[in-house]
Amino acid sequence: MQEHLIIIGGVAAGTKAASKVRRENRDLKITLYTDEKYISYSACGTPYYIGDVIKSEEKILVRSPKEFRTKENIDIKLLHRVTAIMPDDNKVTVKNLETEEEFEDEYTNLLIATGSRSFIPPIEGVELNNVYKLKSISDSIKIKKSAKTAKKAVIIGAGYIGLELAESFRGLGLETTIIEMSPQVLNTFDPDLAGQVKAYLEEEKGVRIILEDSVTKLKGDAKGNLTGVRTEKGQNINAELVVIAVGVKPNVELAEEAGIEIGETGAIKVNKRMQTSIPNIYAAGDCVETVNMITGRQVWIPLGSTANKQGRVAAINIAGGYAEFNGVLGSAVTKIFEYTASISGLNEKTAKKLGIGYEIAIVSHKDRSGYMPDAGEITLKILADRETGKFIGIQAVGKGDADKRVNVIATAMTAAMTVSEFLQTDLTYAPPYSPAIDPLLIAAQILEKKISKDITSISPQDLEKYLKEKKTCSIVDIRKPEEFREWHLKKAKNMSTDELEKRILKERPESILICCDEGMKSYIESLRLKEKGCKNVTFIDGGINYLKNIPEYREKKD
Amino acid sequence: MQEHLIIIGGVAAGTKAASKVRRENRDLKITLYTDEKYISYSACGTPYYIGDVIKSEEKILVRSPKEFRTKENIDIKLLHRVTAIMPDDNKVTVKNLETEEEFEDEYTNLLIATGSRSFIPPIEGVELNNVYKLKSISDSIKIKKSAKTAKKAVIIGAGYIGLELAESFRGLGLETTIIEMSPQVLNTFDPDLAGQVKAYLEEEKGVRIILEDSVTKLKGDAKGNLTGVRTEKGQNINAELVVIAVGVKPNVELAEEAGIEIGETGAIKVNKRMQTSIPNIYAAGDCVETVNMITGRQVWIPLGSTANKQGRVAAINIAGGYAEFNGVLGSAVTKIFEYTASISGLNEKTAKKLGIGYEIAIVSHKDRSGYMPDAGEITLKILADRETGKFIGIQAVGKGDADKRVNVIATAMTAAMTVSEFLQTDLTYAPPYSPAIDPLLIAAQILEKKISKDITSISPQDLEKYLKEKKTCSIVDIRKPEEFREWHLKKAKNMSTDELEKRILKERPESILICCDEGMKSYIESLRLKEKGCKNVTFIDGGINYLKNIPEYREKKD
Repeated sequence: MQEHLIIIGGVAAGTKAASKVRRENRDLKITLYTDEKYISYSACGTPYYIGDVIKSEEKILVRSPKEFRTKENIDIKLLHRVTAIMPDDNKVTVKNLETEEEFEDEYTNLLIATGSRSFIPPIEGVELNNVYKLKSISDSIKIKKSAKTAKKAVIIGAGYIGLELAESFRGLGLETTIIEMSPQVLNTFDPDLAGQVKAYLEEEKGVRIILEDSVTKLKGDAKGNLTGVRTEKGQNINAELVVIAVGVKPNVELAEEAGIEIGETGAIKVNKRMQTSIPNIYAAGDCVETVNMITGRQVWIPLGSTANKQGRVAAINIAGGYAEFNGVLGSAVTKIFEYTASISGLNEKTAKKLGIGYEIAIVSHKDRSGYMPDAGEITLKILADRETGKFIGIQAVGKGDADKRVNVIATAMTAAMTVSEFLQTDLTYAPPYSPAIDPLLIAAQILEKKISKDITSISPQDLEKYLKEKKTCSIVDIRKPEEFREWHLKKAKNMSTDELEKRILKERPESILICCDEGMKSYIESLRLKEKGCKNVTFIDGGINYLKNIPEYREKKD
Repeated sequence: MQEHLIIIGGVAAGTKAASKVRRENRDLKITLYTDEKYISYSACGTPYYIGDVIKSEEKILVRSPKEFRTKENIDIKLLHRVTAIMPDDNKVTVKNLETEEEFEDEYTNLLIATGSRSFIPPIEGVELNNVYKLKSISDSIKIKKSAKTAKKAVIIGAGYIGLELAESFRGLGLETTIIEMSPQVLNTFDPDLAGQVKAYLEEEKGVRIILEDSVTKLKGDAKGNLTGVRTEKGQNINAELVVIAVGVKPNVELAEEAGIEIGETGAIKVNKRMQTSIPNIYAAGDCVETVNMITGRQVWIPLGSTANKQGRVAAINIAGGYAEFNGVLGSAVTKIFEYTASISGLNEKTAKKLGIGYEIAIVSHKDRSGYMPDAGEITLKILADRETGKFIGIQAVGKGDADKRVNVIATAMTAAMTVSEFLQTDLTYAPPYSPAIDPLLIAAQILEKKISKDITSISPQDLEKYLKEKKTCSIVDIRKPEEFREWHLKKAKNMSTDELEKRILKERPESILICCDEGMKSYIESLRLKEKGCKNVTFIDGGINYLKNIPEYREKKD
């Protein structure tokens, strides 16, 4: 029998694998089944299609079924659902969704690339007209059509898709409200940085954001058309369009029913070669779990970039070669209007939860030379392991080029570089691209000092707890008097650095917390005081300017 | 005696070091002498000031002498020229350029940060009015003033400054001609990529570029005002403004006269701690040579980013700490209108000259998802060492985000990452930032195959030599017939991949050169033919699309 590869799923991992197997092996028969009407589309592009940045849905179709058939001899079966896998017989049963006909097909190798689906919470009224999820091209076509007549939209969920959709809807002129259960937007980020994104959306882009609340009812009229939502805390919001974007779940049922092992995260377990527990059945993309390269733990982080890479690795192995996929850093980026939010590795929440001893550096800086008219402010928050001196995570948000910096640290983390080693990196410089000393290097300098000199600092998100515990702490603010008058922490005293040194060395208070504008000057002062024998000196990472951006602190001035 | 640090030079390295020393040590006396009127300015920002992107020269002044004096207790002496260093007495002699008064000053430590100066070739008429160099703020003020009335400008030299100035002049409406001695613009880049930049400037931006010629005479009128230039090859070009930007030379005379060792490159020799041959005399910035981290050789690559970092290292050591500067990759970036040209590590010219066995990958690709309206094309050329599998250089040019990719590989080179290790990097992905598989990863995949499978290819810049040597070579072009008809190499035959395989396996020609659009398909075909036992199969890196951009090939179609 001719070798036959059957692929289930036709978005990123499935189509990538099909083409790659074909390039490696021209003789194999390849059949791809998908229950969708479209294949090989960019799911990540759908918000831009909805927002009319991309005019036609055809643009986000990477390649057509015809191209696959004629150029690569890959048989694409649209609207064909695989209903069962029979590993003992190396067969699948398939249902043609148009004709309802069912049949069996035999494989030598099988690739499960079933992806993920939107999680739809059991809300009353979810069946009303103009209530959508956003997962496929078909969904996005419906949403775009609906958005043309709607005036008010509600997005349930403030993750990547939720926020990207908010941009699309605002661009189309819709009044937009986001409702999110958790206390922050962008849950993969730390709350301090997520707070900046939220403030930007509310204050500059007119998006209404409701946190720590959830939709309990979708309300409709007699015709079954949506009219609004009601939240658990009793808010009623009118809307002619709702998109539910609370998250996704891996499509593992087919695999599970076939006796394929499911991992602890609930996604399909695979080895580094993307093989499932049954050797001639591979799996790749959103339906599989993988390893976090920093922690070594199993994680499920469904992303298009990962799906593409896993599809490639599976293909090489299926074609008889050898390739491994070693894991992810959870690297991701999202554009929200002019704002970029980008991340790689662990955030502070996770590092803390895992009990990792870490140091952080927070640097707010222009992304290029400050005198360039298009310079934008970015905030970097970088974490390093205190024991090993290696980077373990970076987050970057702001109106400037934040993503570039995240990819540099993602590379450093993959190389297991220490902060000290990284400081030797020769990054490019020209005024339109970066400051002469890149914010990344400033952050790395701070981290190096903190690791080597045992300088302690307080992360803004731990400040409240710290102040509660250290009731006798002297809070010293070394900013200019006018800056101090405008906003300062309760009980803080304003003094110059000279005065600080004199008084502290004389009075020797039990503990001192130093505040400055951006965290640099207070860091230098605490270093100096430590060298002069003061104990319990600390400062606030990122300084007062950063603190002011955190919603909890915005109101809490003296 | 109070410890006294004297710094000679007040641009990047000098001012950076002054502030850093002060932060580390509050008791030291610091005096900075400069013969200029301005200090602490961004020399790299001057083209943007001239082009009126930055309106006032004050914007590119980082900090004022007053700030240094009052905030950091650093004594800044403007218009004071240090005329001699006397290491035996730990003294310098200084001349006040305003009063002509001369005096001596004693130091504990000395930092030489004398920078570099423009090299002015001995051209007749160089003393005419409206003939400038661009090195200092004062130069840029004069050029900006002159550009307001001039209609035609000539720039001598097509390096970074020359091309950035061309953008500024065109922006101000001046007819602009660049005259360059060497056969390419941007000499730090390979000619193939530099050819793209040249074509862009000429075809899209109306800049006239004359290569392989030089200015022999600057012509003037009776009043001593410039009227035009004459070139060696006899061209006469009218101009009311000339800027000479043929390169810079390190200012080492002071050091040399004091008996300080000068390195093989002609710049001051320093150790990793930035100490010269006299232990209490440090040097940093454009006046010193450093080590290329890839080759281990001494190089002189004057750049603002390097100057800043060296100033910091010198300062830490002067203040009694310990820091090292390990060398450079020559990382640099320049913006030329909407074009970015960015580089790190070795180019192909240099790798070849040094006899390094390298593989290259050339990838032309959109910088973000192709369906995003603002996606721009970039070309990456990446080199790896064939023996070690490590990256040794990257160049990126194009209208898209090229610089981001260069910084990622600069980090990988600093970490001494192999191409295979890099392929595990989890880079961020979202349609507005990159394609699902970043062009960097595509290039790394090609490099990995070339390193591990012994696939041979021809770099576009070696193609002509190859074709001359291999006169019997079969050239097969596997693009579509219509693409082939539009442009192809002489003697090339057009055939499909199926036909190629059949005919080649039957005819077994002595050597085969495969061409495709972007180098990927031909690479796959040559891999396949090799596996089927064909010897002497090769392909053109970057493909025909890339080749068409190289000036020498643009005209040479069949």
